[in-house]
Amino acid sequence: MTTYSSAPARRTRLTPEREQELYGAVIDLLREAGYDALTMDAVAVRTRSSKATLYRQWSSKQNLVATALKRGKAVHVENVDTGSLPGDLHELADRIGDGSAVDVPLIRGLAHAFAINSNLAEALRQHMIEPKLTGVRQMLGRAADREEIEADVPAADFMPHMMLGAVVTHRLLEDMEVDAAFMHRYIDAVALPALGISR
Amino acid sequence: MTTYSSAPARRTRLTPEREQELYGAVIDLLREAGYDALTMDAVAVRTRSSKATLYRQWSSKQNLVATALKRGKAVHVENVDTGSLPGDLHELADRIGDGSAVDVPLIRGLAHAFAINSNLAEALRQHMIEPKLTGVRQMLGRAADREEIEADVPAADFMPHMMLGAVVTHRLLEDMEVDAAFMHRYIDAVALPALGISR
Repeated sequence: MTTYSSAPARRTRLTPEREQELYGAVIDLLREAGYDALTMDAVAVRTRSSKATLYRQWSSKQNLVATALKRGKAVHVENVDTGSLPGDLHELADRIGDGSAVDVPLIRGLAHAFAINSNLAEALRQHMIEPKLTGVRQMLGRAADREEIEADVPAADFMPHMMLGAVVTHRLLEDMEVDAAFMHRYIDAVALPALGISR
Repeated sequence: MTTYSSAPARRTRLTPEREQELYGAVIDLLREAGYDALTMDAVAVRTRSSKATLYRQWSSKQNLVATALKRGKAVHVENVDTGSLPGDLHELADRIGDGSAVDVPLIRGLAHAFAINSNLAEALRQHMIEPKLTGVRQMLGRAADREEIEADVPAADFMPHMMLGAVVTHRLLEDMEVDAAFMHRYIDAVALPALGISR
């Protein structure tokens, strides 16, 4: 009569929908608690799973988080192409302002872990950073084709630093979460002049 | 004969030297572990204190960390004044490169806590950020006096974002800790052109 309880744990695979839901919950917890304070207990509670299930499938917090970053729904930047570089950058400012272009709380939650954990860094880079760098390169390539900027203007290589840097430092320097108005001012004051575009 | 053991805990104040040593250890632990993973146990072990002493004097981890940030030895930026703005910025680049101008590991260790804990944010801002903003404003004021830049050039307001943004994003974008060579390139490509100074 102990057949059921002593049977090996059932290894039913989670459905893809359930996995996706779980990755979403992990990303939410990273935003709220940050990586260092995130526990498998909290993931289990939030997702109404057992810790045994979590460990069986992902083996460690690090692996679960890295997988969630790779498979979870990314903050999506639709291809921005308004026909001019100032237009593209200001469109990006709006999307940064409404939170749809850069996931600031997630970056913050991973900031420390990112620097000391190369698995997480790789996952974040692959999932969140590379696609955006590609988008920015295309945006600048089109601007060079339209002769809005010189193809070899040195500031072009640093566009990602300029834009992401403004996003992450606004909170540190002004105690305000970044908004579109700030980004519009920054683009006009810094990014466009650095690229040689005057208003 | 129980006089000694039942006497109230001795409230010998720590010597200033001992306090300073303790704050330094807290800052070191913040760099290594980050705020969220920092424990009073770890502080006690590192500083060879008892947890009782720590709690008696600082009452909570948050209060201990905030005090350590306010009283600890700051990463010091000597007043940079080379006689020209490009010179000043490139001097700053060297100091960023050798770690003496910006404490990147500490900023990273506090990134998440900073956004959700206003006490810590206030301590970090007061201790590490405001003095640097003042230094940058003075640097730009001298440049305007020398007529190197126009006094109302819009990029001037964003100098701290440009410089700190480059520092914190280099690791995220290139997987390399910031160094002086990168900062020199960034200053020539972005900061000086944005301010209207061409090489």
